[in-house]
Amino acid sequence: MPHHGALLTDLYELTMAAGYQRFKPETQGTFELFVRALPKQRGYLVLAGIEQALDYITSFRFKPEELDYLRQQPIFSRVEPEFFDYLAEMRFTGDVWAMQEGTIFFPGEPVLQVQAPLAEAQILETYLLSMITFQSMVATKASRVVMAARKRPVVDFGSRRAHGPEAALLAARASYIGGVQATSNVLAGKTFEMPITGTCAHSWVQSFDTEEEAFRAFNDVFPDHSILLIDTYDTLEGARLAIRTGKNVKGVRIDSGDLSRLAKKVRQILDSEGRPDIQIVASSDLDEYKIDDMVREGAPIDMFGVGTEMVTSADAPSLGAVYKLVQTESAEGVRLKIKLSRNKVTYPGRKQVVRRYGTSGTLYQDVIGCAEEAPGRDGRALLEKVVENGELTRPHPELSAVRSYADKEIATVPDRLRKLRGSQEYQVVYSALLEQRLREERRRSHHERDPQD
Amino acid sequence: MPHHGALLTDLYELTMAAGYQRFKPETQGTFELFVRALPKQRGYLVLAGIEQALDYITSFRFKPEELDYLRQQPIFSRVEPEFFDYLAEMRFTGDVWAMQEGTIFFPGEPVLQVQAPLAEAQILETYLLSMITFQSMVATKASRVVMAARKRPVVDFGSRRAHGPEAALLAARASYIGGVQATSNVLAGKTFEMPITGTCAHSWVQSFDTEEEAFRAFNDVFPDHSILLIDTYDTLEGARLAIRTGKNVKGVRIDSGDLSRLAKKVRQILDSEGRPDIQIVASSDLDEYKIDDMVREGAPIDMFGVGTEMVTSADAPSLGAVYKLVQTESAEGVRLKIKLSRNKVTYPGRKQVVRRYGTSGTLYQDVIGCAEEAPGRDGRALLEKVVENGELTRPHPELSAVRSYADKEIATVPDRLRKLRGSQEYQVVYSALLEQRLREERRRSHHERDPQD
Repeated sequence: MPHHGALLTDLYELTMAAGYQRFKPETQGTFELFVRALPKQRGYLVLAGIEQALDYITSFRFKPEELDYLRQQPIFSRVEPEFFDYLAEMRFTGDVWAMQEGTIFFPGEPVLQVQAPLAEAQILETYLLSMITFQSMVATKASRVVMAARKRPVVDFGSRRAHGPEAALLAARASYIGGVQATSNVLAGKTFEMPITGTCAHSWVQSFDTEEEAFRAFNDVFPDHSILLIDTYDTLEGARLAIRTGKNVKGVRIDSGDLSRLAKKVRQILDSEGRPDIQIVASSDLDEYKIDDMVREGAPIDMFGVGTEMVTSADAPSLGAVYKLVQTESAEGVRLKIKLSRNKVTYPGRKQVVRRYGTSGTLYQDVIGCAEEAPGRDGRALLEKVVENGELTRPHPELSAVRSYADKEIATVPDRLRKLRGSQEYQVVYSALLEQRLREERRRSHHERDPQD
Repeated sequence: MPHHGALLTDLYELTMAAGYQRFKPETQGTFELFVRALPKQRGYLVLAGIEQALDYITSFRFKPEELDYLRQQPIFSRVEPEFFDYLAEMRFTGDVWAMQEGTIFFPGEPVLQVQAPLAEAQILETYLLSMITFQSMVATKASRVVMAARKRPVVDFGSRRAHGPEAALLAARASYIGGVQATSNVLAGKTFEMPITGTCAHSWVQSFDTEEEAFRAFNDVFPDHSILLIDTYDTLEGARLAIRTGKNVKGVRIDSGDLSRLAKKVRQILDSEGRPDIQIVASSDLDEYKIDDMVREGAPIDMFGVGTEMVTSADAPSLGAVYKLVQTESAEGVRLKIKLSRNKVTYPGRKQVVRRYGTSGTLYQDVIGCAEEAPGRDGRALLEKVVENGELTRPHPELSAVRSYADKEIATVPDRLRKLRGSQEYQVVYSALLEQRLREERRRSHHERDPQD
């Protein structure tokens, strides 16, 4: 997938980069990307967007006309011209650690760490945050929708309601990682090699003088794949008509009304006419809560098409992630960095997240420790080096492999964290060494200046 | 701005296109894009995204490798090969009418109409909906934030929390139309020729051993544009330090804590130290409600940086827009199309929206009528032909002109529709002729089949 280049960043990343280059061009910084808090109703998060993030890191460039644009900005009028020559040659030269895409993660846990000269690491902030938080938010939402559907397939119909066309593409990918079976977005299918699916719309039915003509025509063009939209006029009549118009009809779709009630009546009609093979697809502003209700009511729906609510994560449309400087390294040595303010502590230094599992294989406890701490006999270290000296350490996994891995990860989430509403909190603790370092840095900071209240 | 090409569409648009080409290649369809209902708390909507929509319409293409991809999909296995040759040559040949970007609009009102051979018009649906609804949603949200700030400038800091990098770009553009002064997104500045702005982040301050070093360094690199972030350690100490470190400091930014209270104290410090010229910028999860509260409390804030809430339109993150077939034309004549279901009536035929103003110049009433009805002496017709036979009828207006026009449009919104909460409903009525046509079509439809209850 093409990206937008190095200029897709906040202006302050570039002003800071200019400052770093003047005052500390040799200093390396380590930044960590993590989520501050779970959005409401969520008991866990599913990581997505790492592939696009790493592609961006290893390939962003400033184009000559972009540098001309920057040179013309008044704010840069007093910056030395060498800075723009530096940007022209800028390549990412650092190291990156990340959790695998599809990993279950929690607030406070770094999912991506960037260690590089300060300017390089800084300008990545905007892109990394928007890419990783958006895809993770959608993958998480999708996993909830898929759970609610209990084994019934869910497909992504959300492109038209996404936040622009690229968001539609990324949401298709992220919802696939979260467990949906396919997307309606054709470019997503081609770009990410994921299954595509589709039926027909009311406009198809309306473009013919009668519903019968419309159904017969669709069956004729797609004899092996005909799923007919039956609610343009009268859903139950539509179901009867669908049976009459084709032996090869695979399914019917209901897109309005009381889906549970209509699905039951349509199922009766199909079965009584000897067509138990015809599947029922339901769509219409669905989310995990509505699907959960329908499944509990025993609605005979074989597939759910989910759109708006999933691709915008409508009940939690943003994820409060940050990208924080935790350490610098220069000729003067390593300096650990903390930020202290009420409810917002950033722990110092580069970290590792170690996960332990209970006897049933479900999540037991995560420990956020210092990067150099050993994970211990039964601990699984979640962060791995994925970029070294500006190069990927290995090819990206196939998206289908990411999805399978995510499926296994989601299976490790205990029931108490899976509740659609009122989920419990998972135990994430800090290692003794990390707590000690925080105390030391806090003391040092108190000596220098009182921290923010 | 580059777009994603013709494959960024829902699969069913292409299956329907294949069907249209087989059964009615000569039939023209007219589709109208409109919003079904106002999102909560909104009394009006601001139109945005038309430029990108029209660029897409007049330039979308299928690439050879995209057609190869389609040919390989099982669903197209029984579609005649001529269909893919048709797609390879497909260019938009039809006409488009639209409201100007920046226009105030309401539910039920078509903002864009596409009249073209059915296949051409159909496949545009997904892209047009995602582009126009997203930008309109953000422009609307921005206009509310700007109103709440009463003349104090608002700037867009939201890129990192947008739904991916392209959504960040589009949100910057849309929020500018809605009235913000500038964006932090550099690529948006270059692409859309809009002002950019930025300060510095906590990482800048933390990368130095002391806050004082960090402030002096920033003042040194940006002597004419230094806005210092003063809340890394202690906001009030930060304010005193900012004064000490530079005569040229332009402003200070507060990004945490009780912004109202802190702004008052910081203002006192700045004024008592003889620096009434230093401006106070506030940011930190702001939205129109919080800004309204702060302005009412008399917080001495000179500029608001708004991010997440604006670029995701967080309290209403989607807009229920549809793209409906309202008319077909073929050798057999014109057929009007309606869709009848409970609460969801689509009126037949291509329409015009005529606006009337009260004596004070504010909105009085909109009438949705048939396209051929005369607007009347005091009526303003909002829909204009913008594409004819596949070509733009005129160049796009400059974005600054769109913003000025939107500003004038927003000025026509009466107070009762501007309330941040509990806004009243605006009067949108249908013309007598259009109501009559609906009755006729309803009768005709009843003869053929009972409409959906």
